Amino acid sequence: MSEEIRLAFAGYGTVGKALHRIIEERNDAFERDEGFRFRVVAVARRDRYIVDADGLATATIRTGSWTSGDAIAMLGECEADVLMEMSPTDLDTAQPALGHCRYAFREGMHVVLANKGPVVRAPDELHQRAADAGVQVRHEATVAGCIPTLSTARHGFAGDTVRRIEGVLNGTTNFILTRMAEEGSDLDQALREAQSLGYAEADPTNDLDGFDAAAKVVILANSVLGREITMDDVEVRGIRDITRQAVELAKAHGYRIRLIAEADREGIARVGPRLVPAGSSLDVKGALNAVRFTTDLAGHVTLTGAGAGGMETAAAMLSDLMGLARVGKARRVERAKA
Amino acid sequence: MSEEIRLAFAGYGTVGKALHRIIEERNDAFERDEGFRFRVVAVARRDRYIVDADGLATATIRTGSWTSGDAIAMLGECEADVLMEMSPTDLDTAQPALGHCRYAFREGMHVVLANKGPVVRAPDELHQRAADAGVQVRHEATVAGCIPTLSTARHGFAGDTVRRIEGVLNGTTNFILTRMAEEGSDLDQALREAQSLGYAEADPTNDLDGFDAAAKVVILANSVLGREITMDDVEVRGIRDITRQAVELAKAHGYRIRLIAEADREGIARVGPRLVPAGSSLDVKGALNAVRFTTDLAGHVTLTGAGAGGMETAAAMLSDLMGLARVGKARRVERAKA
Repeated sequence: MSEEIRLAFAGYGTVGKALHRIIEERNDAFERDEGFRFRVVAVARRDRYIVDADGLATATIRTGSWTSGDAIAMLGECEADVLMEMSPTDLDTAQPALGHCRYAFREGMHVVLANKGPVVRAPDELHQRAADAGVQVRHEATVAGCIPTLSTARHGFAGDTVRRIEGVLNGTTNFILTRMAEEGSDLDQALREAQSLGYAEADPTNDLDGFDAAAKVVILANSVLGREITMDDVEVRGIRDITRQAVELAKAHGYRIRLIAEADREGIARVGPRLVPAGSSLDVKGALNAVRFTTDLAGHVTLTGAGAGGMETAAAMLSDLMGLARVGKARRVERAKA
Repeated sequence: MSEEIRLAFAGYGTVGKALHRIIEERNDAFERDEGFRFRVVAVARRDRYIVDADGLATATIRTGSWTSGDAIAMLGECEADVLMEMSPTDLDTAQPALGHCRYAFREGMHVVLANKGPVVRAPDELHQRAADAGVQVRHEATVAGCIPTLSTARHGFAGDTVRRIEGVLNGTTNFILTRMAEEGSDLDQALREAQSLGYAEADPTNDLDGFDAAAKVVILANSVLGREITMDDVEVRGIRDITRQAVELAKAHGYRIRLIAEADREGIARVGPRLVPAGSSLDVKGALNAVRFTTDLAGHVTLTGAGAGGMETAAAMLSDLMGLARVGKARRVERAKA
């Protein structure tokens, strides 16, 4: 009899649906190859939730009986081992995700986040509360989509020390800068194109002004580089003042303009447009992301891949979940309630 | 009191010396951050060895008292937890490394290899004997130097399925092809340059004819793609017949010629020169390596970095060792001797 790990989903949009479908499709393979499978026992979406200790199939989510209430109410009613936190991100308040995490920790649940809010706004609290509760918190999906950034820093460079990280961490601005160089369009045209293709939101502030990339700098600096910084510590410049002429001038000299996020172990934590040589490792095209590590022993290693997308984000959350399950850390911790 | 993990080195060339120095420099940090440290208790080099249960420092290796005998004799005299296999590679016989591994397994030692021989020639035997002995065998350093290839496949894509791997896995031929394109030189000139810089050996057959890359295809196919293949199953074409004219023609059309190694889960396992678009993810320059994964969920993710070098190979071996130690799998398995 294999182990079954019970999951509660906070949020059921593109990512949640993709993750649920992936788990359903792969559960038999997980059981065969790894000796465990997953059971989705609760799903909360906006102001309603559904709980079934026997497990929810993707097909029964639509037809099942939903109750009015939020994710906290759901967590109080289900016996989950791991909270999969996929609620809408608020980089200012970190809510409602932070409240979900606090509640889950008190109940002895581990937490896997796709939501950047708590990781950016309250990393100390998050990790302290998890440690106090004896549970794990992981958040591979908060940085660079399906590029295994945190996993590579931990496992790939085990024993080594990462000194510096630079990257293209925002796919929307990279798509815009790529189109400006390829089509000779100006920023507004490229932005409208990005919006029509679903790469940019109606309010593109977080992307264009560099805040999304800055949030990822905070996460990488704190998680990989031993820093303790907040959004206020990141020097941020976006791409709003990048003109078609600037892009073309760069191109004529063999360069590309890219919105580069960077941090090191000393004082650097910044986001801004930079010239990178055409064809160099950070010159990724379109909505791709790139992460370049500089380490003591391995030197420079660069990872490139899709930065966003429901499936990619779900894949990153799944890798966190597998990591917990493989080391036997995915079971709820039974303890006196605080 | 922290745990101490005892290491035996088979081989003490560039890689062994680098690994020894790294361990010495980082042991205090490992003890502080991870709760364990490493102790090198034995070193074998060609026909002599040195054993000291109290630990060998890099400084005492030179002045210490060496005994005549091989690595097997060393293993018989030391109480190591892990054999670090760095003896000279023989892709035909896999010896002497395979003998070292067999002996280590019988003694209950785990094995970390930089030596491709046993992994390419006798993967089934290697893994079966390790499983029978209840010990671990790891070999990150056998593919793509310090690019964490096997680690990424296991941890980064946990829960996902890697379908296909393509890559530039031989730095020597990539250096030669890069110089031919950049300098307009022919293959012989570029080869001599590579030899004078230490990128190519006096006998460049293994590199130029694609055998080194083919060995890595075998390792990746068996370790990541669920295949069971040998060198004979790899279709191999090297770069000897690549002319300056071919390189220049490719360049004029926006392409580069690269020696691409590839394998999938179905029938593909091959090495050969291929045209790749200039600036695309496999168009790495000089002695760099690139590995491009295609997975079910993450899509395409490419890793680039240094392919070879003593420090890089040592870093890859260290990451294997850390992986064992972190999950408590680095202690010798006590059992009845076979």
